[in-house]
Amino acid sequence: MEPLRSYLAGRWQRPDGPGTPLHDAATGQEVARISTAGLDPAAALTHGRETVGPALRELTFHQRAALLKALASHLREHRQELYALSARTGATKGDSKFDVDGGIGVLFSYSSKGRRELPDDTVHVDGGTEPLGKQGTFLGQHVATPLRGVAVQINAFNFPVWGPLEKLAPAFVAGMPTLIKPAPQTAYLTHRLVELIVESGILPEGSVQLLCGDPGDLLDHLTEQDTLSFTGSAATARRLRSHDNVVRSCVRFNAEADSLNCSILGPDATPDSEEFELFVRQLVTETTVKAGQKCTAVRRAFVPAELADEVTEAVRLRLAGIRVGNPASPEVDMGALADLEQREEVRRSLKSLLESCRLVHGDPNTPFELVDADYEQGAFVPPMLLRCDDPELPQPHEVEAFGPVTTVMPYRDAEHAVELARRGSGSLVGSVVSADPEFVRTVVTGAASQHGRMLVLNRHDSAESTGHGSPLPQLVHGGPGRAGGGEEMAGIRGVLHHMQRTAVQADPDTLTALTRQWMPGSARNTTAVHPFRKYLEQLRVGDSVVGGPRTITREDVRRFAEFTGDEFYAHTDERAAAENPFFGGLVAHGYLVVSFAAGLFVAPEPGPVLANYGLENLRFLTPTYPGDEITVTLTAKRITPRHNADYGEVRWDADVTNQDGESVAKYDVLTLVAKENQEAG
Amino acid sequence: MEPLRSYLAGRWQRPDGPGTPLHDAATGQEVARISTAGLDPAAALTHGRETVGPALRELTFHQRAALLKALASHLREHRQELYALSARTGATKGDSKFDVDGGIGVLFSYSSKGRRELPDDTVHVDGGTEPLGKQGTFLGQHVATPLRGVAVQINAFNFPVWGPLEKLAPAFVAGMPTLIKPAPQTAYLTHRLVELIVESGILPEGSVQLLCGDPGDLLDHLTEQDTLSFTGSAATARRLRSHDNVVRSCVRFNAEADSLNCSILGPDATPDSEEFELFVRQLVTETTVKAGQKCTAVRRAFVPAELADEVTEAVRLRLAGIRVGNPASPEVDMGALADLEQREEVRRSLKSLLESCRLVHGDPNTPFELVDADYEQGAFVPPMLLRCDDPELPQPHEVEAFGPVTTVMPYRDAEHAVELARRGSGSLVGSVVSADPEFVRTVVTGAASQHGRMLVLNRHDSAESTGHGSPLPQLVHGGPGRAGGGEEMAGIRGVLHHMQRTAVQADPDTLTALTRQWMPGSARNTTAVHPFRKYLEQLRVGDSVVGGPRTITREDVRRFAEFTGDEFYAHTDERAAAENPFFGGLVAHGYLVVSFAAGLFVAPEPGPVLANYGLENLRFLTPTYPGDEITVTLTAKRITPRHNADYGEVRWDADVTNQDGESVAKYDVLTLVAKENQEAG
Repeated sequence: MEPLRSYLAGRWQRPDGPGTPLHDAATGQEVARISTAGLDPAAALTHGRETVGPALRELTFHQRAALLKALASHLREHRQELYALSARTGATKGDSKFDVDGGIGVLFSYSSKGRRELPDDTVHVDGGTEPLGKQGTFLGQHVATPLRGVAVQINAFNFPVWGPLEKLAPAFVAGMPTLIKPAPQTAYLTHRLVELIVESGILPEGSVQLLCGDPGDLLDHLTEQDTLSFTGSAATARRLRSHDNVVRSCVRFNAEADSLNCSILGPDATPDSEEFELFVRQLVTETTVKAGQKCTAVRRAFVPAELADEVTEAVRLRLAGIRVGNPASPEVDMGALADLEQREEVRRSLKSLLESCRLVHGDPNTPFELVDADYEQGAFVPPMLLRCDDPELPQPHEVEAFGPVTTVMPYRDAEHAVELARRGSGSLVGSVVSADPEFVRTVVTGAASQHGRMLVLNRHDSAESTGHGSPLPQLVHGGPGRAGGGEEMAGIRGVLHHMQRTAVQADPDTLTALTRQWMPGSARNTTAVHPFRKYLEQLRVGDSVVGGPRTITREDVRRFAEFTGDEFYAHTDERAAAENPFFGGLVAHGYLVVSFAAGLFVAPEPGPVLANYGLENLRFLTPTYPGDEITVTLTAKRITPRHNADYGEVRWDADVTNQDGESVAKYDVLTLVAKENQEAG
Repeated sequence: MEPLRSYLAGRWQRPDGPGTPLHDAATGQEVARISTAGLDPAAALTHGRETVGPALRELTFHQRAALLKALASHLREHRQELYALSARTGATKGDSKFDVDGGIGVLFSYSSKGRRELPDDTVHVDGGTEPLGKQGTFLGQHVATPLRGVAVQINAFNFPVWGPLEKLAPAFVAGMPTLIKPAPQTAYLTHRLVELIVESGILPEGSVQLLCGDPGDLLDHLTEQDTLSFTGSAATARRLRSHDNVVRSCVRFNAEADSLNCSILGPDATPDSEEFELFVRQLVTETTVKAGQKCTAVRRAFVPAELADEVTEAVRLRLAGIRVGNPASPEVDMGALADLEQREEVRRSLKSLLESCRLVHGDPNTPFELVDADYEQGAFVPPMLLRCDDPELPQPHEVEAFGPVTTVMPYRDAEHAVELARRGSGSLVGSVVSADPEFVRTVVTGAASQHGRMLVLNRHDSAESTGHGSPLPQLVHGGPGRAGGGEEMAGIRGVLHHMQRTAVQADPDTLTALTRQWMPGSARNTTAVHPFRKYLEQLRVGDSVVGGPRTITREDVRRFAEFTGDEFYAHTDERAAAENPFFGGLVAHGYLVVSFAAGLFVAPEPGPVLANYGLENLRFLTPTYPGDEITVTLTAKRITPRHNADYGEVRWDADVTNQDGESVAKYDVLTLVAKENQEAG
């Protein structure tokens, strides 16, 4: 068998020599061989930096997002093939879907977020504009631009598809090429994934490179413009984090390590409650999915002392019904561990745990009944349930058996539950199963600073809950301390991890030129043509129209009150209005001001502006009194063409001033504006 | 002389033994002694975690912000005393103001940001709510809670007041106690600062602790709940970053190291231009302020090749006029380096630089004219100007002389300037002096990913520019690579560095209870009392009023168009409206819908609601056609009492639905609501 090829510097490269064999988790048969002998990882970094990066940075966020969607659709068409290969890693069909569909889901999610939350441009405007002087000639604006290196990912064996895709998606949207280094055990599945990506030709060449096997001196070649993301053991995370060049070059490093996640049952969850059943069912799922090889699995189950026996027995009964065996068989509930070495590792950890716990169910040291599989050939273990009656002992909070192993422990009260949860020294996720808001608030606020994610499960959300063990692209994945101290995904935050935030200080016109977003104080272009008469392609940031003046009369205010029914005293009762601390007299409705302002800036005839779909950041800054004369200036602030649509979004800056030049209202008007060149439907 | 005391675990503690003497930078006289012999830094961490942290977490963000403001005012009253002591560090009055006033300014800024941008609560709601299911029973919301440890800061000698305050402010607003470890050279000034803080009694006891001298085994005791912020040399940053326990416990580490910052003169800036003069003046300032001991100083000045001689000569002339000497003397422009060791360090660095540069002005190796000072006693050097005609040589991009030293280098074109800027391998700040937007855009977008901050200086913003060398609390301070790979301040982002972001997944009611912000889908309380009739103290999140229904007639739309002047065809011309792709017929104005909605929810008589000061996030979701019947539900979403005011802010969720129950508009209404118990003015 030839060793797996790596995809580096624009071509598939075969390593020298025979490579190391990789085995089917369930049958022990050789599946593939792996090696990086003779390969040059440094050349891949150079290729990424010098050839691929510039090409990706030419694309806008929206263009990258669209490519990601196309890739997701392509992979979805090929998922059966990935499932089949996934079975050889020990994964059941359900496990494979978790991995494969989950990974594809991240691509879809980032594609959608990228289009909705980032501009159709190459620079991201991050946060609000900071005025740095009283005259408004000097502003501060944070922007984010892509790092000019390669996003190197070093992955764990347990999610050979989700792992690489979850890291690829935000890096690609940011504009960084990726280099994937899969864990050896399941590298053949990641290898096929990358083949599918490369064959599809959807992403620009080199957006994804693959290094199957030992990374050699890869880390020695990283610079401050590269990122290094790792998922795996705490020991390896430590080695990478303190690697000489990673430290010297201040390479951005992100780690996500297995942690001793907990699930806490509330005292309200008596055995007849829905929450009791939800807790037991979730615990069994978390223990058996991926044969417990999930960094988010529940290792510590904290239950009220008085319920400990009942919970233990209920979980034991369910685990006893779990059918273990050939992961390709539809009758099987739980497959194999990744390899025999992992089984040894689980046995060792269990031994440590048994210093403070007793085994209630499952023994990994003796053969047991398997469906369509052989205990000698495959890395099979039964699901294991432990009980620890003294939760002050160290082992359950420090030893992680990376397999289908969980420990039930009693707690006294909410404070004790928090204290025990915190003994994990940092976790990816914790869950609270309770319908008692007071208990939930105590536990969540008490334990949040040690968790990247906390899930509250109860009768109200169980139908839609995505589960303790599922990281979601919208939410943070990662946690402090033992969990690696990192943060992945969390929507656009994950994109920003691959970009540099830079505070730009400049005059308004320069900032407008740089961000392509009109900044307050920068030049306006008030030509003869009303900007509402311009198609999207003709419209420029800064295009303006000035409407007014219009005098607001006492009669206008009276009529508006009567017409809308908004007879708030400040608009209708002179005497009462005089007492109001902010007005000191009758004032016009804010709604009147913006409605009249629209009357002043609108171009009534049919034209490119199709609809006003909203307003943002409306602030009434000065009261408008009867007799005041208002003028409105509307300026195109941001123009966002939509791909695959006949229109785009235009955000306008609206500034309504009075006869003294004071701003009485400022806001953004959101409109849809047609393209002149309508695209094919 | 007794060694400086440290303030640890609730009391001032005197170290054992005589300590090491510290010397006046200008006179060489002993100023203080320093030692940590016999002190127990681990006890200070325990005190911070167990006693101080819980007390700080009891306070809301607004309460902490208010204390910070009081502290800032207190320190401002004592700044003369700090200036006087600052002179002994070698600082002129101007330098001292930069340090002292700058530090106090950070406190004011964080106080103001904390009140404006954070809730009057203990949990920060971070970003938008993520719907995680179609029924709306399961939501995701990121929250930030304070880390439960100590914010340890290890500071540089050059800003003994600004340095500690800049790190203290965001940590305190977050709810974390601080432990300051000043650099020995200038520790006596930080010591006096902490005395002032402690004596004032303004902050809760232990909010600030002080360790004067060697930190001993401090780092061995840090946990994942502590933070470690460092400002200083790259070598020390490396040592801290790779410290065994820092790595093992995944302690959040932030470094800000000196970097080879550049300033780039645009090709438009001919000698007769304002920009030429601005560039020269800024370069001289950046070279001489704090005797060049500023991590943000300009070390590399890139100028168009054809202007290199003129720039060099102009800068040389100015530097020749700089009076060096006793920093307490008002005639002096530049004081001394921190100590004689620093002078040796500068001499060594200069020697390296001279391998590729020539010295145009200033020689640190020979005595020169000083004002009221002695060359033998004080750490004096002259300002030094270097010229490097081959900017491809390595030294100017790698060797930092941490003193009044800068190097002028020629570049060919914008791309070359970008390339040279990037050779700094990561900088805190770069500036571009140009009024050519095209040049500025090329340079800023080209170099941004290697800079934490970039300043554009030209005739348009020079009057208000805060300068290349001044980090601002609103903006990022820090940079990639050589600059340490960190990020400080940047407004509320700096507060979040001291908090854990946690994704909470739960049902709406639980999230409402947790965040004290009403979440869509959670319970509403529609009692008999209209919520506009409730004072701030009585109002609860979830209090609601339902108004309507009201039928929108064709006549209403016609009348609204005529009244406001908003005769947009979709509201007035049946035939044209039918052609609109989104409406397909005549529709009501969005402004009509929100105006009528206000008429439906308002309580007209005088009462606690004082004013509507704005709207947020208004989206028109479904068109409203003549004949449609609208209903509005207004729900108290967030209640924010203002300290020292007779009212607070209440944000209401407004949901306008039609006869089919579809939402036609959603938005937040912002109001000011009176307190029942009016505080004394």
